[in-house]
Amino acid sequence: MAKKDDFVTKIADIETDFPQWYTDVVIKTKLVDYGPVKGTMVIRPYGYAIWENIQREMDARFKAAGVENAYFPLLIPMSFMTKEAEHVEGFAPEVAVVTHAGGGKLDEPLVVRPTSETIIGHMYGKWVESWRDLPLRENQWCNVMRWEKTTRPFLRTSEFLWQEGHSVYASAEEAESETLSMLALYEAFAKDVLCMPVLCGRKTEKEKFAGAVATYGMEAMMHDGKSLQSGTTHYMGQNFAKAFGVQFTDKDGALKYGYTMSYGVSTRLIGAIIMTHGDSRGLVLPPPVAPFEVVIVPIAMKKEGVVEACHALKSTLENAGIRVKLDDTDNSPGWKFNEWEMKGVPLRIELGPRDIEAGTMTVFTRDNCEKGELPLGDAGAVWAALKAMCTRMYDRASERMRQRIVNAASLEELLTGVNGGNFVRAGWCGDRACEDRVKEFAQATARVMDKTNTAAMCVCCGKEAKHTVFFARAY
Amino acid sequence: MAKKDDFVTKIADIETDFPQWYTDVVIKTKLVDYGPVKGTMVIRPYGYAIWENIQREMDARFKAAGVENAYFPLLIPMSFMTKEAEHVEGFAPEVAVVTHAGGGKLDEPLVVRPTSETIIGHMYGKWVESWRDLPLRENQWCNVMRWEKTTRPFLRTSEFLWQEGHSVYASAEEAESETLSMLALYEAFAKDVLCMPVLCGRKTEKEKFAGAVATYGMEAMMHDGKSLQSGTTHYMGQNFAKAFGVQFTDKDGALKYGYTMSYGVSTRLIGAIIMTHGDSRGLVLPPPVAPFEVVIVPIAMKKEGVVEACHALKSTLENAGIRVKLDDTDNSPGWKFNEWEMKGVPLRIELGPRDIEAGTMTVFTRDNCEKGELPLGDAGAVWAALKAMCTRMYDRASERMRQRIVNAASLEELLTGVNGGNFVRAGWCGDRACEDRVKEFAQATARVMDKTNTAAMCVCCGKEAKHTVFFARAY
Repeated sequence: MAKKDDFVTKIADIETDFPQWYTDVVIKTKLVDYGPVKGTMVIRPYGYAIWENIQREMDARFKAAGVENAYFPLLIPMSFMTKEAEHVEGFAPEVAVVTHAGGGKLDEPLVVRPTSETIIGHMYGKWVESWRDLPLRENQWCNVMRWEKTTRPFLRTSEFLWQEGHSVYASAEEAESETLSMLALYEAFAKDVLCMPVLCGRKTEKEKFAGAVATYGMEAMMHDGKSLQSGTTHYMGQNFAKAFGVQFTDKDGALKYGYTMSYGVSTRLIGAIIMTHGDSRGLVLPPPVAPFEVVIVPIAMKKEGVVEACHALKSTLENAGIRVKLDDTDNSPGWKFNEWEMKGVPLRIELGPRDIEAGTMTVFTRDNCEKGELPLGDAGAVWAALKAMCTRMYDRASERMRQRIVNAASLEELLTGVNGGNFVRAGWCGDRACEDRVKEFAQATARVMDKTNTAAMCVCCGKEAKHTVFFARAY
Repeated sequence: MAKKDDFVTKIADIETDFPQWYTDVVIKTKLVDYGPVKGTMVIRPYGYAIWENIQREMDARFKAAGVENAYFPLLIPMSFMTKEAEHVEGFAPEVAVVTHAGGGKLDEPLVVRPTSETIIGHMYGKWVESWRDLPLRENQWCNVMRWEKTTRPFLRTSEFLWQEGHSVYASAEEAESETLSMLALYEAFAKDVLCMPVLCGRKTEKEKFAGAVATYGMEAMMHDGKSLQSGTTHYMGQNFAKAFGVQFTDKDGALKYGYTMSYGVSTRLIGAIIMTHGDSRGLVLPPPVAPFEVVIVPIAMKKEGVVEACHALKSTLENAGIRVKLDDTDNSPGWKFNEWEMKGVPLRIELGPRDIEAGTMTVFTRDNCEKGELPLGDAGAVWAALKAMCTRMYDRASERMRQRIVNAASLEELLTGVNGGNFVRAGWCGDRACEDRVKEFAQATARVMDKTNTAAMCVCCGKEAKHTVFFARAY
């Protein structure tokens, strides 16, 4: 039997060594493991269950918005990549290429999809004929591959899982509108399902998607004050429609190019959850995506009626739609407490002879590590506790973000800001040279631009500010 | 507006040109389209919705059986493939290989997974230490790639979607037992969810999975009497455990190799459904997996109250958990009838002023193409009609299979049997030479062996029969 504090001592300190804390947590809680090929990851059942919950919740929102799921091929002819000039420039350096198959060399090398604008553009070009075929709005849940030099589980890996939605509209206005409405869908999802506040806005030219007219991102603030890009939407104008012949006969009889947009989130969201909510004991999982919302730990398990009462409680909660784990292994309660705290189960219920006699159950809420008591078997009270936890988690993360957004009027102030683990709001003239200079001086990048410009001067050159930008160090 | 019989005339005759009927149906109902790379397919929303329903139903059964989902990397080091001698021999000719990535040549070529025994074996070797870690039972839903020369949508494509479950047990008995219990799970799924009878049994040495000790298959009889392998389970013994070092310390302190098994079904099941149930009008979809179980077609749509009544009916049925499409487009009812019949929607409800006045709805059941009447808005009656349809579809397919299994005592009888679109039950001595001779003589292969041997003589050499085999032509 393991000792009580085996786990706690194994995780690096979150305040002094956050990168090591992250690695310890993802490996020791069995969310993920390293694959045999450098830069790849194996998503283990405890991690994959989180992804399944993310998928289920987000897929329902897509379907409610009228998007349909489909599946497009993994392999893309190399020639497709070169049809959109910016796109190939952006992605060519990181693609994996199939050159041989079926025992021979291929006539044309095939790219393992890094994203699917090109192949979906090609199919849309085949399918779209008339204005009656528009809009066309499909999404796929799949794997993609981008060969990265520096990798970390969930945050940046050669292969990852994601969804990519692709729409084509008859007008620029409609396509632009969905670019914003999908960003809003992501933002609401982050709040409702991940209990995670985000900053949403338009990206600079430097940071936009290769081939897009405009990219919008949602950025989340991690425990260390760094930013994690957690979802993006892209307005493509007619760039891909022209490259792939996505044309339709409009109501007026004229042949026109469509306007396309795309949007995606990935398994990176699991990294976002970990680094937004985690604490010194390990994971703190948002109830809506936790593999189990409740773990039941029997106390004095050998005493008559305890295990039976735990099973009965499990059934009661499951019948109310709650995901429950009953830990009736031989380990001591203290060992189980540590294990499930590290694994971030939102609510722990301890049930022993005294609780049963009193008709109560002892509950431990993971986010604030507080103990309380609820009426035994009261599923409504458990739901309420989980809901309250969601609110607390969101509020806590929001308060941190609020406190850690600072303004800067000079590069020095900007540097001090990001050194202190803050997002820095500052004016920007709009010149790429100033953006590059900020990166060089402060190792910070423009995450998103604020919706309105409230700054007078560029933080770098002092000329008139055209945008107010949130600068930060980023994963 | 399209003409009433546009669709019907576009599908080849199912009796005289079944291959063309299949191609017409899958393309014209928009289940699938051809991808730009030869042998690849795009699964379109109407086809993907079927796959989502299959996934949901089967995944629930896996979870109820205690299997957990995970995700393993797409790319497998070439060296892994060669660790199990039979495995590499079987799969090497059909793999796709990544040789370049991130702008350079890789030190070791990487195989796009054709199946994941090797990489999962590697990870299990890392994770399994003690008997306490066993059994380990994980499954993944993913894409796989096998470079095929002759391809057909859903039946055989370079890339397809599937699930692959992989278990490791401490004993041979347990691993063998799951090999049979997963086969039973597939058989029950085929019956309950696809309304499809199957023949289950052990495969011959020639037909087994590369690297397995024993393979079991479920075979379904298609409209033309040919067989479609629709799912397989494999008992690996210690072959992969030894190749990848899956060892555990047993209760007695000794270090032992585990016993592994695997099982899989793929998007091929969609092909099985199409060719089992389809008829001259097109698809006939089993209600449990149909994208919509019900399509509502308004009659005299411009008349007051009709569209409103259709929307109300849709809500009523959806609230009862039924998937419903309301076709309120401008097309004529006749055009809609043809379209949705071709697309195989199980139940059509026609609702017009007369029905509304009489408090009834006209229903058309796709499998038998019969019309009837039900009380307007009676969701219970709709459920009952769908359930009855499942029974009829299963019974009809079972009756066909019963009639089309014939016995043969000679190669000539076997040839006559398969020429007549039958499965042929015949004795076999167990020699590979006789199995090869049957293939040469009758273009038929051993699909599965019967559970017990009831034949006296080998259909080929006349020697004593060791097995009774179901021979058939196969997709």
